[in-house]
Amino acid sequence: MSQPCLENVLAYLRDNRSRYLEELCAYVRFPSVSAQPHHRADLRACAGWLLENCRRAGLTARLCPTRGNPILVARTPRAKAGRKPHFLVYGHYDVQPAEPFDLWKSPPFEPRLEGRSLFARGASDNKGQHLAHLKAIEAYLKTGTPLPCDVTFVIEGEEEVGSSNLATFLGANRAALACDGVVVSDNGMAAAGLPALTYALRGIAALEVKLTGPDRDLHSGLFGGSVDNPAMALCQMLGSLRDRRGRITVPGFYDDVRPLTAYERKELARLPFSARSYAKFVGAPRLFGERGHTVWEQRTARPTLEINGLTSGYQGVGSKTIVPSWASAKLTARLVPDQEPARIDRLLRRHLRRICPRSVRLEIESGHGALPYHFSPSGVHARAGLRALKAAFDRDPVLLREGGSIPIVSDFKRILKADTLLLGLALPDDNAHSPNEKFDLDCFSSGMRLGAFLWPELAAVAKG
Amino acid sequence: MSQPCLENVLAYLRDNRSRYLEELCAYVRFPSVSAQPHHRADLRACAGWLLENCRRAGLTARLCPTRGNPILVARTPRAKAGRKPHFLVYGHYDVQPAEPFDLWKSPPFEPRLEGRSLFARGASDNKGQHLAHLKAIEAYLKTGTPLPCDVTFVIEGEEEVGSSNLATFLGANRAALACDGVVVSDNGMAAAGLPALTYALRGIAALEVKLTGPDRDLHSGLFGGSVDNPAMALCQMLGSLRDRRGRITVPGFYDDVRPLTAYERKELARLPFSARSYAKFVGAPRLFGERGHTVWEQRTARPTLEINGLTSGYQGVGSKTIVPSWASAKLTARLVPDQEPARIDRLLRRHLRRICPRSVRLEIESGHGALPYHFSPSGVHARAGLRALKAAFDRDPVLLREGGSIPIVSDFKRILKADTLLLGLALPDDNAHSPNEKFDLDCFSSGMRLGAFLWPELAAVAKG
Repeated sequence: MSQPCLENVLAYLRDNRSRYLEELCAYVRFPSVSAQPHHRADLRACAGWLLENCRRAGLTARLCPTRGNPILVARTPRAKAGRKPHFLVYGHYDVQPAEPFDLWKSPPFEPRLEGRSLFARGASDNKGQHLAHLKAIEAYLKTGTPLPCDVTFVIEGEEEVGSSNLATFLGANRAALACDGVVVSDNGMAAAGLPALTYALRGIAALEVKLTGPDRDLHSGLFGGSVDNPAMALCQMLGSLRDRRGRITVPGFYDDVRPLTAYERKELARLPFSARSYAKFVGAPRLFGERGHTVWEQRTARPTLEINGLTSGYQGVGSKTIVPSWASAKLTARLVPDQEPARIDRLLRRHLRRICPRSVRLEIESGHGALPYHFSPSGVHARAGLRALKAAFDRDPVLLREGGSIPIVSDFKRILKADTLLLGLALPDDNAHSPNEKFDLDCFSSGMRLGAFLWPELAAVAKG
Repeated sequence: MSQPCLENVLAYLRDNRSRYLEELCAYVRFPSVSAQPHHRADLRACAGWLLENCRRAGLTARLCPTRGNPILVARTPRAKAGRKPHFLVYGHYDVQPAEPFDLWKSPPFEPRLEGRSLFARGASDNKGQHLAHLKAIEAYLKTGTPLPCDVTFVIEGEEEVGSSNLATFLGANRAALACDGVVVSDNGMAAAGLPALTYALRGIAALEVKLTGPDRDLHSGLFGGSVDNPAMALCQMLGSLRDRRGRITVPGFYDDVRPLTAYERKELARLPFSARSYAKFVGAPRLFGERGHTVWEQRTARPTLEINGLTSGYQGVGSKTIVPSWASAKLTARLVPDQEPARIDRLLRRHLRRICPRSVRLEIESGHGALPYHFSPSGVHARAGLRALKAAFDRDPVLLREGGSIPIVSDFKRILKADTLLLGLALPDDNAHSPNEKFDLDCFSSGMRLGAFLWPELAAVAKG
């Protein structure tokens, strides 16, 4: 790849910056919340917008129907003869629910620019990140710069609800999607201006627990004292799942945790961190985590069990003097190598059944699961990625583990036998999954530059 | 009081039975939910309907404004000369919230008759019960039967939210409300057809607890493990408040509990009870209560601490992988003589502060409180009440303790120095505070007969 050609790509990206910002704004206006059935039409409209955007960029694009939301597939024009390396770029056009709406400074689906921050649900997770890659490819195509590889975008609409139809799709399209690697920007950098290659992800196991006591809400005066209170029983059960040292008490929970190597602990200890500013950023009275581990380790390399939601009885204004009929909780465990979601699900179910008192009825519903992911940061693809990061950000990248789950990374490995290069563009304060989510426009620009530098680097090692 | 006169009253009650049912239906159609601010206008309309009904019955009635909902005061016509005994009849026209609506077999504010049961929110608690007394007085007035005493109805609109303005009202109207006793039918019978005089009530202390961790919902992947989960902290705190034997663990909680006498335990043991049918009625997998006490004792003579509601994080469809910013619970303690709500509130606050981890911020808001009540069932008023019950129901009444709270009973004692005769008309399966609340039409009829027999009996002992 000759340098002058890349100059054209980079110049095109600079020249079209304001249009790209407008496109990002248009993209985040779609309330494409996959968890909420009433947004189904918004997801369709969002996918339609993306399809059109890909076609205008010069890609051959189509929406592939699934049992849920369609998957967008967009390919660079293929050469008539000769095989080039082939890479996938993965992203998702669905977003997390925006609730609670009243904590947003501006409406979540009306993008607002403040300084270099574009505030909107989905701006960072994940619309802005994959749009950067898409715009870089557009720059190649529009400037007539030859791409040293074939690129296929796979942008799904169910990442936030467990990507349940993507694996089926990958399996059914194994041949067309056979590739030399997958590129995913759906995660974070180490700090503003400090790019990172992420070599490990946490997995996840989700379940909902419901306890039912009396078959209806009962008057707490007339009946209280003689029947169990399912909210109390739920508190006692869930409260016993974590000890004072922050350890999960479910038997077997830590059995499959691969201990951190001394090298990994040392690398994580090199990452920038200030306990004071971190505590201030998360806004908690003080930090709390598993004893014996640093915050970076707690966040990225240790498993957790979180209560995501609690529901029981009367939640309105004032009081209602009842023994509630039922109480429920949404739980998720974050998993690390080599924990398996199916096994953790079994352990949790078995333990919950064991500790459930006979005065209430227990129902457990398993949700989505994802394997944790880990790959060697010293392979050829990883090193190519590190070089592209350095060129795009003009700074030496660091190695990261990521606490979040990108469930499909394991699917790419299992189904396509492809490794995934994780090149996150989000900042630690981007408020993914929180009110006031934002995306930094410098990250957007650098992300597009990354998309320019990446393909020659990757093509070179794939060829070699 | 001569027997023929009472025959006229009883005949009038029989003759007007179907009109009275229509009036009860009209009365329960008002969604007079005092806990929910958007029902304010419905409470006003309901009070207006009651005012008109009292006037048509021949009473001198008016609505007395308060800082909250108005209090209806309706008096029997006073004799020009001579002092007759004076009794108050207390009731409340406000009702509990009807949520959850989907568990009602028919809409809560559209009365539905099935057999002898009239289903509607407020039918039993308390509209039907005080309407029975009102219709009995109407029968006296319309038949020209001389009343041996003056009767004043005091029907408030804030009982379900703690009667916070009634005490002020009683204090400001001490002279006009000076009386020989108060009659309240806002509680239950021992069983269908088995009337009861209730000699003790449980009190109540209410509070809301809120724990805040991070200042917003956080991504459980990016941050989980390094900050405390306030829902988990809440479960651990609340779950520790009750032990496996059903005992509340808050230090000092039982200090002021007056032990049951052997006589009381024996009387309670005589009440009809079947564990099997009781468990079936409440619909719980099995009963659970403080060990060492019978179900009647647990329900009426032992204090409790209940979680009435739990709220945290995401409660919608699907999952949301967050560490929630906060978690809250509504709590109420049922109190028995000689526990005091203010002291129990202090004990709970102190204990919760003591066990709250420093990784979350604790807020406690105290709600309404009411003293428990206890009076001797062998006094003259009690014996008069027992005679009237026997005449109205044609069956020997039993002595009961009541697990519910009727906060104002203590106010009548404290402010008016008046004892309260508790003559409940509700059946154990009336579903007060629950979906599908109902009132039994036989109880309605017998309640009206009670209102016929009661005044001669009470006037006799007040004069004597």
